[in-house]
Amino acid sequence: MRLSESKIKTKKRIEIEEESKGLAYLLRANFIEKLTSGVYNYLPFGLRVIRKIEKIVREEMERIGGQEILMAALHPKSLWEQTNRWEAFDALFKVQSRYGQWYGLGPTHEEVVTPLAKNFIFSYRDLPLYLYQIQTKFRDEPRPKGGLMRTKEFLMKDLYSFHTDEKDLDWYYEKVKKAYLKVYKRCGLKPIITEASGGTFSKFSHEFQVLTEKGEDTIFLCANCGFSRNKEIMEGKKCPVCGKKIESYSAAEVGNIFKLKDKYSRSLDLKYIDQNGEEKYVLMGCYGIGISRLLSVISEVLSDSKGLVFPEEIAPYHYIILPLYTGRRDTDKKITKFSEEIYQLLKDHQKEVVFDDRKNVSIGEKFNDVDLMGIFYRLVISEKTLSKKRIEVKKRNSPNLKYLSKNELINLKK
Amino acid sequence: MRLSESKIKTKKRIEIEEESKGLAYLLRANFIEKLTSGVYNYLPFGLRVIRKIEKIVREEMERIGGQEILMAALHPKSLWEQTNRWEAFDALFKVQSRYGQWYGLGPTHEEVVTPLAKNFIFSYRDLPLYLYQIQTKFRDEPRPKGGLMRTKEFLMKDLYSFHTDEKDLDWYYEKVKKAYLKVYKRCGLKPIITEASGGTFSKFSHEFQVLTEKGEDTIFLCANCGFSRNKEIMEGKKCPVCGKKIESYSAAEVGNIFKLKDKYSRSLDLKYIDQNGEEKYVLMGCYGIGISRLLSVISEVLSDSKGLVFPEEIAPYHYIILPLYTGRRDTDKKITKFSEEIYQLLKDHQKEVVFDDRKNVSIGEKFNDVDLMGIFYRLVISEKTLSKKRIEVKKRNSPNLKYLSKNELINLKK
Repeated sequence: MRLSESKIKTKKRIEIEEESKGLAYLLRANFIEKLTSGVYNYLPFGLRVIRKIEKIVREEMERIGGQEILMAALHPKSLWEQTNRWEAFDALFKVQSRYGQWYGLGPTHEEVVTPLAKNFIFSYRDLPLYLYQIQTKFRDEPRPKGGLMRTKEFLMKDLYSFHTDEKDLDWYYEKVKKAYLKVYKRCGLKPIITEASGGTFSKFSHEFQVLTEKGEDTIFLCANCGFSRNKEIMEGKKCPVCGKKIESYSAAEVGNIFKLKDKYSRSLDLKYIDQNGEEKYVLMGCYGIGISRLLSVISEVLSDSKGLVFPEEIAPYHYIILPLYTGRRDTDKKITKFSEEIYQLLKDHQKEVVFDDRKNVSIGEKFNDVDLMGIFYRLVISEKTLSKKRIEVKKRNSPNLKYLSKNELINLKK
Repeated sequence: MRLSESKIKTKKRIEIEEESKGLAYLLRANFIEKLTSGVYNYLPFGLRVIRKIEKIVREEMERIGGQEILMAALHPKSLWEQTNRWEAFDALFKVQSRYGQWYGLGPTHEEVVTPLAKNFIFSYRDLPLYLYQIQTKFRDEPRPKGGLMRTKEFLMKDLYSFHTDEKDLDWYYEKVKKAYLKVYKRCGLKPIITEASGGTFSKFSHEFQVLTEKGEDTIFLCANCGFSRNKEIMEGKKCPVCGKKIESYSAAEVGNIFKLKDKYSRSLDLKYIDQNGEEKYVLMGCYGIGISRLLSVISEVLSDSKGLVFPEEIAPYHYIILPLYTGRRDTDKKITKFSEEIYQLLKDHQKEVVFDDRKNVSIGEKFNDVDLMGIFYRLVISEKTLSKKRIEVKKRNSPNLKYLSKNELINLKK
C-alpha cells in the first residue's frame, strides 16, 4: 500500500490526557477513534491488527474442534426471563421495538446458544459439540475506562461446549486452557491463570490475567509455586498450595473460562438421550476472549517510549519502505527507482508492505510514524544503501541495523 | 471435515410454511436459525457462505480503493439530532443507558463516518477517500418478512466516498456500479440497475434489482432498450428513453447507491481546504450491499427442486465424499480405504472437502443432503468406481456424471 494513496495519517497532536500510553498510542496512530464514552470505531490500521488477532483465535479454536457460528445481538426478552437474568444482569442494555417487543442487546450468549444447540443435539452420539463465534457484545458498563479495556460495545470470541458428563467437560476445559495460552503466546503475552469466582454453579472459574499497572483487577500470585487467585475470592495472605507468603499485583483480564454445568441446560431445557435411552441435561462450559480488549492490553504491555510494538504475526504491516532523499535530483531518482523495485519485489512475494511515498511529510515524521504504528520491519533506502545495492533493515523491537541484499530480504526468517 | 465429528445435521422435518423455497432450504439445511421474528442466527455452513460472499465484496471494494474500517453500532443521539434524523428515521432502534445517555442502534452510518473522516481529510490532497465496513445493522422494520430479505438485524457492506467536486463523485459512482456488477456476477446473479428516488439531494439513486417473484419491489423494465426504473418513481407506461411500452416485474434489491453530495458534510461540518486556500464542503457518496440479503436472494434464485445451488466460489464446501457401501465386509473395507485416500488427497491440496462418514444415516439421506446444502462437487466411491480406480464426480448444477482418476480430480478446472 502506498501511504500517499491511502490518505491514512497519524495525529500530530498528542493525546496527553489518556489513561494509559497504549491507549494514547492507539489514538495518536489513528488505529481507533473514540465515538463517545465507551464506544470506539476501528480505523484501517487498527482493524488490520484486530483481524489478525481474530485469525489466531479462529485457528486455535478450530484446532480444538470449535465450529464457527454467528449469533444475533437482539435477544428476545423471553429467553432472558427463562434464565432469570432479564432483571438480574445489571449491564444488559434493553431496547423496545416501536411495535412493542423488548430485546436485550447480547452481553453474552448462553440464552441464545443453548436453544440453538437443539438443532444439533439429540442423543449422546451428538456430543461433545463445540460452537464459537466472534461477535459484537453490548454491556451498559457503569464507568467505561481504559480505552478498549472496558467498553459498552466490544468484540468478543465466545466458545460454548456441550458434554454428556463432568469428566468430559473437565477434560475439554483443560484443553481450552492450553489453546488459550497458545493464542496469547502468538499475541506476545504471557498471562497468569488465576482462580476466580465460579458463581453459584462451580467452585472456581479461571481468568487469564496479564500483569500491568493499568489493569483493573488485583490478583494474588505466589512467587514460590506460581499459584494465583483473584483478590475478590482470596482469603488470607498465604498461598493455599505451598503455604508461602503471597503477593498482590495489578492485572488485566484477557480471557475467562467457566464450567456452567447444567445451569443453562436446565433453565432452557437442553437435553440428550443417553446410552440407556434416558433423558439427561447436557453439561456446558463457556470460554471468552475479549478481542478488542486484547488489542488494548497488547498495546499497553508491549509498547515502548516511541509507540506500539507488535509481534510479527499481528503487526498491521510487516514491512515499510522509507526512501531517504538527498536533495540531489539524480541520486534521488535512483533512490525512488530502487524503493519502487523493493516495493514491487515484496508485493510479488505476497508480503504485507507499506511504501511511505508521502511528499509533504518530513523524514523525521516518517521515522516517528513507523515506530508509533508498530510496523515490524523498517526498510530504509538511502544513498549509502544504494551504493551497496543493499537495504537497511531494522526490526521494530530491536535497535540493530542490518544491511541486506534483495534476496536476503525476501528470505528473512521470522 | 468429517460430518461424523462435526455433528452438523440437516433437519428431517420439512418447514412447509415458509414464504419461499430459498428460505425453507436455508432453514432445513441448518444454514440459519430463526431466533425471533426478523432475527436470525448463522450456523456453521451458512456462515461459511456468508464469509465467502464477504470475501468477494472485500476484494472488489479493495480494487476500487476502498479501505476497511469497523464502526460502532451504538450511535450517540446528538449526531442523529445534528442530521435531523433522530425523529425522522422511523426504523431507528433507540436504547437508553441506565446512566441516562440515549443511543441509536446504527441502521446506516452517515452520522458516524462523516465525523470519522475528519481524522483523514484536511486539504484537497487528502481527497478522494473511500472507507467501507462490513458490519451488523439494526432496523426496527414494521413487518419482517422473507426470511433474511428484511430483518431487524442484518449484515451489510457500506462504502462511503469523499470527493472535492461533483465530477469526481460522478466518476467514482460509475466505478462502484461496475464493481457491484462484478460482486453479483461472482455470486451467480445478474441484477438490473434500476433508477430509484434520489431523496431530496439527488435526482436519482440506483438500485441493483434481481428479478424474482419473491421480491418485495416492483420495477419497470424496457425489453427494447434495457432501461429500468422503480415503480415508486415511475410515471407512465412508456420507456422514457426509447418510447416503447414498458413492463413491470417483481424484484429483490441486492444493493443501492446514492450521491449524498453535501447533505451530511453540511450538517456534520466536514470541510476541506481547496487549492486556493478556501474552505469547502466535502461531497459524499454512499453504497450499500446487504450481505445476508444476498445469501437470501441467491438461495431463492439459484436453488432448484432439490435444494440450494451455489457458484463454486461461494459454495459452503467444494467437495463431498460419499462412500457407497455394499454390505460385503471386504469390499466395504476397500471403499472406506479409497474414500479416506481421496479425503486426505483433497486436504493435502488445500481443497475444502467434507467426508460424509456418518454411520447412522442412510445413503438416500446422504444424497439428499448434498443437494440440499449445495456442495459443489459430489464424489461417490462405490464398488464400481473402485474397480476402475476412479471417482464418480457430479457437479451440483449439472446432471452429468464423470469418472475421474485421482490426478484428474485434483486438476479439475473451475
